[in-house]
Amino acid sequence: MHGSHAPARRIIAVKSGGEAAIPDWQACFAELAPHLEVRWWDDPQVAPEDVDYVIVWQPEPGRLAAYPNLRLILSSAAGTDHITSDPSWPRHLPIVRAVTPEASQRMAEFIVMSTLALMRDLKRAITGQHQRVWDNFEVDRCAWDMRVGILGLGSMGAASARMLRSVGFGVSGWSRSQKAIEGITCHAGREGLDAFLKETDILVCLLPNTPETTGLINADLLAKLPAGAGLINAGRGTHMVLEDVLSALDSGQLSGAVLDVFEEEPLLADNPAWTHPKVIVTPHIGSIASRRARAAFYAEQIRRFEAGEPMDALYDPVAGY
Amino acid sequence: MHGSHAPARRIIAVKSGGEAAIPDWQACFAELAPHLEVRWWDDPQVAPEDVDYVIVWQPEPGRLAAYPNLRLILSSAAGTDHITSDPSWPRHLPIVRAVTPEASQRMAEFIVMSTLALMRDLKRAITGQHQRVWDNFEVDRCAWDMRVGILGLGSMGAASARMLRSVGFGVSGWSRSQKAIEGITCHAGREGLDAFLKETDILVCLLPNTPETTGLINADLLAKLPAGAGLINAGRGTHMVLEDVLSALDSGQLSGAVLDVFEEEPLLADNPAWTHPKVIVTPHIGSIASRRARAAFYAEQIRRFEAGEPMDALYDPVAGY
Repeated sequence: MHGSHAPARRIIAVKSGGEAAIPDWQACFAELAPHLEVRWWDDPQVAPEDVDYVIVWQPEPGRLAAYPNLRLILSSAAGTDHITSDPSWPRHLPIVRAVTPEASQRMAEFIVMSTLALMRDLKRAITGQHQRVWDNFEVDRCAWDMRVGILGLGSMGAASARMLRSVGFGVSGWSRSQKAIEGITCHAGREGLDAFLKETDILVCLLPNTPETTGLINADLLAKLPAGAGLINAGRGTHMVLEDVLSALDSGQLSGAVLDVFEEEPLLADNPAWTHPKVIVTPHIGSIASRRARAAFYAEQIRRFEAGEPMDALYDPVAGY
Repeated sequence: MHGSHAPARRIIAVKSGGEAAIPDWQACFAELAPHLEVRWWDDPQVAPEDVDYVIVWQPEPGRLAAYPNLRLILSSAAGTDHITSDPSWPRHLPIVRAVTPEASQRMAEFIVMSTLALMRDLKRAITGQHQRVWDNFEVDRCAWDMRVGILGLGSMGAASARMLRSVGFGVSGWSRSQKAIEGITCHAGREGLDAFLKETDILVCLLPNTPETTGLINADLLAKLPAGAGLINAGRGTHMVLEDVLSALDSGQLSGAVLDVFEEEPLLADNPAWTHPKVIVTPHIGSIASRRARAAFYAEQIRRFEAGEPMDALYDPVAGY
């Protein structure tokens, strides 16, 4: 389509979704970029030197370095920490983050669902259902009376902020550098954090995973929220000190939490978050973009790469995400 | 405020919220309409002939008829069926339905939360949490790919339709008489029902309770939805044939349901809805307006009544709601 010659055949090794997802990825790329041959990540028939591209989530350390002719790394999701945590990852290669409008929409949907669930105390209804108790409780606030504060105003944070606003919440945001989003009160930097926290009834974490954001949600930060605030973590497990979150729930400083991400995933069966009466645990489903949407995004980035055009959503080694 | 003489003292007997809520209602009216003396519904010190107004949910049959000087009935909520089901209710009196903008906002919030919960299969995450199983599943659609169909386009239905639209869903509505709401595909009457159902991925019931709407959501109607549709009932339990809903869930015709209302409330402990793996049961919390907002609405309607001005949201005996 983009040139008069058919592009050279390329191999794309895919880990995302596991082996079962390979036929689906193959069908997507057959339509979008037929010169790309989709192969399973652990396919013994594929010689490492033949691999041109990869679509990965958490590649085993050393695996990427073992592809001598790898040209481009495509992350399964918006984050890159699951790739750059491998000390031997090939630093000379670009990493494309899967930042599609659909992924931002999905994250915003998850955040709105979770925010409403905290405001309406859905956990109490879930517990009532489990115990078969008709507990017709009242809630004293609606969205008009509450302010949601979003840590991280990237494409997912901004989409979530806008959707929360449209539902009726007051919305604030906090980011490393100052942003401007219509209708959203934007704070920035360490010096803007306290004012942001003070006005936040429900705190939403959508930060990237960097050394600066690790452990940010700890007892000290939680104490700066109004008493009885809610917490949603759909960023990374490393952003929060889970013990501090659970302590704040026990003391009433937090009234409820929706936790989608954890330092160790899958979450171990003995983790106290599973059974905490004020916690809704979801299994890292905040924003899983459809394969179709991601394949279209990857195919377009590969097209640009092969045409020598600039790509979207590249990992920035200075910012660390 | 509304006239040069202080209005005569009036007694308002309140059942809503139970005896524990009386101090709260008293505080609200002391500010809004100090001539109203708030008394508990079962207060033995109040002579029936002294009661001027009532705020009620499900008055015991015969109780309203026993107030000889009752002038106005204020319903606790948007419905009136819990009052008119008493064969002896005083038909010469007006009933004001509690239809506040805040109540519509709260219902819309509940509908958006429930719609997102069905789309994202929150029930599966809840089950995973209960079993402490990290079940990282994928969902293939976002709001952009789905159409929500709302049965009933009163103030709550219309507010829900608008909010769902702002979140990204396609939205259709169905009502007795033809409505026009920007951005919403509006169907009307029995003749418009099939076309409406055919395009509905998630069906939301916000109908008033009338003989015409009783049992509407039955096997016949559910079979007209696309296979795997979702259902939210926040209208009345009598709108659905619960057995048919559970059968449709078992067969896969429905993929999930959020049920907030039941024919008999509180829901009995042996009702199969409690334990159905695809059902989220909530205890009739769809829209409980705050006392503050309802008190302001009631005080304004009473002011109009006493001033001989027309009131809002009156029960219409012809329509039956």
